[in-house]
Amino acid sequence: MNHSVAEETPSVGKYDLITELAKGFVQENGSTVVGIGDDAAVLSPSSEYVVTSSKVFLENVHFDLTYVPLQYLGYKAVTVVCSDILAMNAIPTQLSVNVAISNRFDLKAVQDLLDGVATGCENLHVDITGLDITTSRRDLIVSVSATGECEPAHLVRRQGAAENELICVSGDFAAAYAGLLLLEREKKVFDENPGVQPDFAGQDYLLQRQLRPEARLDIIEALRREDIIPTAMTNVSDGMAAALMQICRASNTGAVIFEERIPMTELTFNTLRHFSIVHTVAALNGGDDYELMFTIKQADFERIKNVANVSIVGYIKEKAYGCQLMTNDNHQIEIKAQGFSKMQNHA
Amino acid sequence: MNHSVAEETPSVGKYDLITELAKGFVQENGSTVVGIGDDAAVLSPSSEYVVTSSKVFLENVHFDLTYVPLQYLGYKAVTVVCSDILAMNAIPTQLSVNVAISNRFDLKAVQDLLDGVATGCENLHVDITGLDITTSRRDLIVSVSATGECEPAHLVRRQGAAENELICVSGDFAAAYAGLLLLEREKKVFDENPGVQPDFAGQDYLLQRQLRPEARLDIIEALRREDIIPTAMTNVSDGMAAALMQICRASNTGAVIFEERIPMTELTFNTLRHFSIVHTVAALNGGDDYELMFTIKQADFERIKNVANVSIVGYIKEKAYGCQLMTNDNHQIEIKAQGFSKMQNHA
Repeated sequence: MNHSVAEETPSVGKYDLITELAKGFVQENGSTVVGIGDDAAVLSPSSEYVVTSSKVFLENVHFDLTYVPLQYLGYKAVTVVCSDILAMNAIPTQLSVNVAISNRFDLKAVQDLLDGVATGCENLHVDITGLDITTSRRDLIVSVSATGECEPAHLVRRQGAAENELICVSGDFAAAYAGLLLLEREKKVFDENPGVQPDFAGQDYLLQRQLRPEARLDIIEALRREDIIPTAMTNVSDGMAAALMQICRASNTGAVIFEERIPMTELTFNTLRHFSIVHTVAALNGGDDYELMFTIKQADFERIKNVANVSIVGYIKEKAYGCQLMTNDNHQIEIKAQGFSKMQNHA
Repeated sequence: MNHSVAEETPSVGKYDLITELAKGFVQENGSTVVGIGDDAAVLSPSSEYVVTSSKVFLENVHFDLTYVPLQYLGYKAVTVVCSDILAMNAIPTQLSVNVAISNRFDLKAVQDLLDGVATGCENLHVDITGLDITTSRRDLIVSVSATGECEPAHLVRRQGAAENELICVSGDFAAAYAGLLLLEREKKVFDENPGVQPDFAGQDYLLQRQLRPEARLDIIEALRREDIIPTAMTNVSDGMAAALMQICRASNTGAVIFEERIPMTELTFNTLRHFSIVHTVAALNGGDDYELMFTIKQADFERIKNVANVSIVGYIKEKAYGCQLMTNDNHQIEIKAQGFSKMQNHA
């Protein structure tokens, strides 16, 4: 039974629908003055700087509902936009979401999507202060805007890295890309034979990284505890190569990273090998990691060891050096940003 | 000659394209710390409250490119989202825009759209602090997020109206709806006979109101000059009826407005009559006016006369009274929100 939202709610208007859907949202951020239900949201930030970011996610461009559950989609949208706030060394505090749906979707679908958004926000202690539902012709469109806060002394930009500083990354890489390869393979199998059940045994971590990635609030909090303020930082959303080049370009520097230092789980490594993909290429150019890349002063070397899930992968060089990868067999390869789409052609 | 954006820029990446497109943007707001080009924008608001709003505009749902020039579309997107900030009695300060385009559009199309966004922002002294360009399958999608500021003492919500207070509106009504009727008629004529040129002689005002409406920053500034703080306010985007009901519902009151007091130009009146549409129905239920509706204390009656382009249309009553329209022939009609789509069926 598939009812469109309009059919499900013949007697209530759009405003009632939004009020109803918003009921499950918890508000726990003291800086929220006015949330959903007025012309705009009102915040009373306790820090001097306010940080904003927004993203639009389009069906069949950014996500494929044949294998992306709506709850995970909502969760991931929160992760993506909040990762950009965190990458300024700021704390995300409020988020608003606009959903455009067609009559392909029922009310339950919207609720599932918003459940994912709400869970993502709860995990990051972010209030949902805006919600709008509108009509699309066919595809699902999710637009998310986040606000965060930081003190001027904490703000970290892409620019600011200097020669000899250490290049750090959180988490591990290419797992989300390996997860995508698995999902795409099973989709193809399913398209050819709809009776076959997907076989993802033992691959949970890779699927989780692709479908329901986490924003690294934990890393930002740990850096504060250790009193480390990175000199430059960016969100790794399109592979390590693009992130490194953004930091180097903004900071007017070069850099070297070491292949052996790139953090990757054995599961990711083996899965990529199964697909005949060079694991380092996947780490450099795969997407959807939502890890942080940042640079720190050498003086912070001892203290960074106290921050769990951070690896030092290289260091900043002078601009003329360019961005180089030192391979395991001691070859130097110039790093070029390719991004995700190119990746698949090269694989 | 129609090149897709990707074809036009074979050697430059997405980041260079965005940097290039952003070059025309003027930054004049002192509170902008970091604009386009980092992971997120950074603002340093000078007021205690920060106000946020965002909207998504979809081709063939919210706009029709057969008669909407891209520059006007960009301008209107700014008006719509900034109107929501102004309706909190706040001043819009920063805006970010996400555009999703397919290969139906060339680089010039994106530039035209962003020119309109830039002009809209310049007129309101708003900085563009975010820009993202992404791929859509076919339709053009424009998502806009705005930030504004106000002091707590200035904040005006939908709630706050009290019995006997005066209901005011800015500007005049139903002109945008009349403009839409004209555009839809000419589109139909053109579809049937593509050789015919549109005949809009003398209708400029109506087209302007539909295609390139203005946000009422002037009204908010004038209210401040006169030291008038409305008790409740909302943006009239879906007709006066919906706006009045939002204020009454939030404020837990009723209201009466007088048909004879509804401001409308003679041009609008005559055009609606030409289309056999009852002018008051169009004012109550037509859309896209982007005027402000607000309530003021009776004590502000003398001073509101100093604010140009504001009309008093009625006053707040007790909740049990409901929302009523007093017609020119002294009949009382209960106001129900219908919104724009219903309007067209009733016409």
